[in-house]
Amino acid sequence: MKKIINSVEQVENEMVLGMAKAYPQYVRKLDCGNVVVRTNRKEGKVALISGGGSGHEPAHGGYVGEGMLDAAVSGAVFTSPTPDQIYEGIKAVATDQGVLMVIKNYTGDVMNFEMAGEMAQMEGIKVAQVVVNDDVAVFVHKIAGAKAETGASLEEVQAVAQKVIDNVRTMGMAIRPCTVPAAGQPGFELNDDEMEVGIGIHGEPGTHREPLKKADEIVDLLLEKILADLDYSGKEVAVMINGSGATPLMELFIVNNRVSDVLAEKGVKVYKTLVGEYMTSIEMEGFSISLLRLDDELKELLDAKADTPAFKA
Amino acid sequence: MKKIINSVEQVENEMVLGMAKAYPQYVRKLDCGNVVVRTNRKEGKVALISGGGSGHEPAHGGYVGEGMLDAAVSGAVFTSPTPDQIYEGIKAVATDQGVLMVIKNYTGDVMNFEMAGEMAQMEGIKVAQVVVNDDVAVFVHKIAGAKAETGASLEEVQAVAQKVIDNVRTMGMAIRPCTVPAAGQPGFELNDDEMEVGIGIHGEPGTHREPLKKADEIVDLLLEKILADLDYSGKEVAVMINGSGATPLMELFIVNNRVSDVLAEKGVKVYKTLVGEYMTSIEMEGFSISLLRLDDELKELLDAKADTPAFKA
Repeated sequence: MKKIINSVEQVENEMVLGMAKAYPQYVRKLDCGNVVVRTNRKEGKVALISGGGSGHEPAHGGYVGEGMLDAAVSGAVFTSPTPDQIYEGIKAVATDQGVLMVIKNYTGDVMNFEMAGEMAQMEGIKVAQVVVNDDVAVFVHKIAGAKAETGASLEEVQAVAQKVIDNVRTMGMAIRPCTVPAAGQPGFELNDDEMEVGIGIHGEPGTHREPLKKADEIVDLLLEKILADLDYSGKEVAVMINGSGATPLMELFIVNNRVSDVLAEKGVKVYKTLVGEYMTSIEMEGFSISLLRLDDELKELLDAKADTPAFKA
Repeated sequence: MKKIINSVEQVENEMVLGMAKAYPQYVRKLDCGNVVVRTNRKEGKVALISGGGSGHEPAHGGYVGEGMLDAAVSGAVFTSPTPDQIYEGIKAVATDQGVLMVIKNYTGDVMNFEMAGEMAQMEGIKVAQVVVNDDVAVFVHKIAGAKAETGASLEEVQAVAQKVIDNVRTMGMAIRPCTVPAAGQPGFELNDDEMEVGIGIHGEPGTHREPLKKADEIVDLLLEKILADLDYSGKEVAVMINGSGATPLMELFIVNNRVSDVLAEKGVKVYKTLVGEYMTSIEMEGFSISLLRLDDELKELLDAKADTPAFKA
């Protein structure tokens, strides 16, 4: 394992400290653990909290700020934070309008966030939740965060978050695995002529392995699955080409060149494209494509002001 | 060589096309080659043009937009664009106020940009230039771009660009090399217990090789060289922790944790910190630290509005 770290034990703690020191204008770290909260707390709006294992940077701490999250809680790499940590995060940002928890769809995350939510409710804090898949979380942070900023109710913010979840599909692939520091070796091995398809964000293998193809063929394969799963024809979409952590931006743009052409051929209108590292798996090399169907409400919220370390609009 | 591409020959072209298709609101690709120009051209200001070899994404096309560059010209990977290409870029964005060329300090870039500048001057276009080192270019784009946006003269924009160059130092290292697609193999090889120090951005080895150290020790080594080369004591600085392309953001934050602590100990006041991939070397794994000494003028220009694909302020 070759990494730029000090010790396996200190990775998460030093990472969160280093982020908080880089962006004091956006985030403040709580003393009770790896929880960061918005520096300029805003009353009179629903507070949004998310989190999960570390290793997905800039998620989720990088999305704390105006128009997105109010708090982000980090566990160990690819490991859920504890209910106590999450509870501290909720308490630190809760307002009279309530708190929406944006939970990633993993057993540990769902269990621990729900437990923390119950602890908060016993203290009289209004809590609601949505459960999202992987990369898609960034769209939820952006759009539900913008809705909250308008002063919408907890039910309204939850509803628009769920609308995002219902209108988005993602498919990913990888050509190189990542190594969880505490494990010391890669989550899987791939030959030079192989790729993993249907990959998630926790370093595990995908749904299946195939011979490595050209970039355009890989895009066609992933888009075919996405377009078969939800009806995008004639719709306007937001496209996210997300790098897994070690993928050169050059390759992500080559991917987008094909995505853009295929969508044009299929009559899917691209309203906005995001290309970059939004939700990573440490140093995995690969990418995912996400397509979000938009209506006027989602377009307006997607374009609304956001000012966070990793996302500005 | 394992990459997500279609063919070695099409890498640069498809990359620029994919970028232009992702960001039509910011950039437009010229028909004459890999030149992108600002979509909403602004008259009455000095135009800024930069560029160089591909492989440094998001540089330089990602910095085209309000408050930064007006045009970016891309050559083949790590290879200067031709004078003709640069000349087309200059002509496309030139205003009565003139054009500032921000040239990277490599023989080919300097020669070809100067030749293009002379061609433009023969057409009656006012041209000036500055020559910058590597990563530092991003600070120059930001600050000189903001100055140009105020309507300052060509001489004033050139002067502030030079002021940035005179007040910044950079040191970099790498733990993994990158592979230029056309070469097919890495620019150097490193054992698992080695690192290259004093690395540039073109995939070549650094000034020397050392045993791989802990993150904090690496930071101390690089900062020692930077702080010995320019007097930062008692000064306010902007810090850039730049990833080389495949470095997990987690590791860059661990680096910043130490950078922040050491600067505090040394009495250097951090005004703003940038952590991310600003100037890469394809999939090299490593980072550089840049420290820019600030005065009131530079602080104001650093904070001024920028709206580009890869940098927003």
